[in-house]
Amino acid sequence: MVLPAPFGQRLADGMARLGPLCVGIDPHAATLAAWDLPDDARGLEIFGLRLVEAAAGTAPAVKPQAAFFERHGAAGLAALERVLAAARAAGLLTILDVKRGDIGSTMAGYAQAYLGEGAPLAADAITVSPYLGFGSLRPAIDLAQAGGKGLFVLALTSNPEGPEVQAAVGPDGLTVAGRILRQLGQLNAGATGLGSFGAVVGATIQPPEGADAAALATMGGPFLAPGIGAQGAGPAQLAAVFGPVRRHVLAASSRAIAAAGPSVAKVRGAIGQAVAELLPALA
Amino acid sequence: MVLPAPFGQRLADGMARLGPLCVGIDPHAATLAAWDLPDDARGLEIFGLRLVEAAAGTAPAVKPQAAFFERHGAAGLAALERVLAAARAAGLLTILDVKRGDIGSTMAGYAQAYLGEGAPLAADAITVSPYLGFGSLRPAIDLAQAGGKGLFVLALTSNPEGPEVQAAVGPDGLTVAGRILRQLGQLNAGATGLGSFGAVVGATIQPPEGADAAALATMGGPFLAPGIGAQGAGPAQLAAVFGPVRRHVLAASSRAIAAAGPSVAKVRGAIGQAVAELLPALA
Repeated sequence: MVLPAPFGQRLADGMARLGPLCVGIDPHAATLAAWDLPDDARGLEIFGLRLVEAAAGTAPAVKPQAAFFERHGAAGLAALERVLAAARAAGLLTILDVKRGDIGSTMAGYAQAYLGEGAPLAADAITVSPYLGFGSLRPAIDLAQAGGKGLFVLALTSNPEGPEVQAAVGPDGLTVAGRILRQLGQLNAGATGLGSFGAVVGATIQPPEGADAAALATMGGPFLAPGIGAQGAGPAQLAAVFGPVRRHVLAASSRAIAAAGPSVAKVRGAIGQAVAELLPALA
Repeated sequence: MVLPAPFGQRLADGMARLGPLCVGIDPHAATLAAWDLPDDARGLEIFGLRLVEAAAGTAPAVKPQAAFFERHGAAGLAALERVLAAARAAGLLTILDVKRGDIGSTMAGYAQAYLGEGAPLAADAITVSPYLGFGSLRPAIDLAQAGGKGLFVLALTSNPEGPEVQAAVGPDGLTVAGRILRQLGQLNAGATGLGSFGAVVGATIQPPEGADAAALATMGGPFLAPGIGAQGAGPAQLAAVFGPVRRHVLAASSRAIAAAGPSVAKVRGAIGQAVAELLPALA
């Protein structure tokens, strides 16, 4: 079996070719209604496939949000399987937003479910949650390294309650988020080019300071960042939060893009416009 | 529509009747093999249904571990739907171990998926992860309150990497876990008897001290605790960690119980024995 190139390398290639946008596939009930689609598994699938069609050749990656598929149980997950397969077939990188986190054999189960070779819901990368400690993610890290996959670990989010956990300070003086960024940096240390172990960092956060800022600057992997453009962060804020590593930011956008639908041509136009707006801000 | 009694009350009734054991349904590949079952959706379903049959009338609750069903994608989730339906029909409380956590409309999507009236994967309670801040769980709290459902929020876990996040200290001097326990206490304040908002607290943790210990003692909801009995925590350790609120501990056990299978009668015997061992330690 020929192994694929590491995720970080594949993502860097895609971003160099098509720009720093990841198209979110978030089938909210309200969005489905706006697209005149039923709020059921069929509606989820049609929505997802149209976004995949619009993103193919226009953006490097798509990010389905698992919660909205899980709302419809097994039938919703079957729709997600088909959306992921279509994205792969279209040459898109798939980042499945599942924010899983557990320990031991259960974490290994999640890793197999979403990063395992041939698993029905396998993606190129997933989001994971480190409440149980960074080391608890080890089974997913191992499986990602073995198969050329990637992770995006929740680090610094822009919701008002986030700092309650993320800004708490450990005995070494680092914040929880700073420690996660530093551990990601250690994982990415051996990578050629962009590492495969990224962080979720909101674009509209308070810019980190001191050791946290240093950990962010030397993390070495991609940043998955919601909240860029339109009502979100502009060039000045992006520079303040990410500094020179803003070139490693993959901006996630869903609502603004879906709002252009349901016409695939119009969605493709909205993706193109979003990329055009992002390029100077993240250059 | 007649609302069910609050989850905490239903759980307290069940624990008073049948004891403090929650039967984990963790279909590891190795356990399926030991039961001579295939590692596929059919194997998951047979395994789950046998544990449900053994638990009915012997323990108050079952706790399927979602990760092992997700490994088999939509087909695995269809098996989980049937296991949950069988547990409900058998009068068991269902605690679905999903450890979800997100913000805003995505968290609302998870809440609808697992606590929503009539959702295919709805349970009586779920586990949730607070890395994004306790307040990010609000959509799940609201839906649980409206429908007589419950939550178990990850707080203090016994894996070695847990303290890295959970013991970090906020500006108010409380640890991350202590703050979560205190916020749970505020949610449970108005409850009659046991509250519906519980915490996941490992039985083999370092006993909390100071403000953390106080927050644990006044949390007011149930504790979902892995690691009790056999190679785990004994009576002295349980008293040290939980003090007088050890009467609110629901002990989760899976491996020791599944090891008695595949005979349903033998699994039922193992459940009865586990309850008999737990009762004096948690009285």
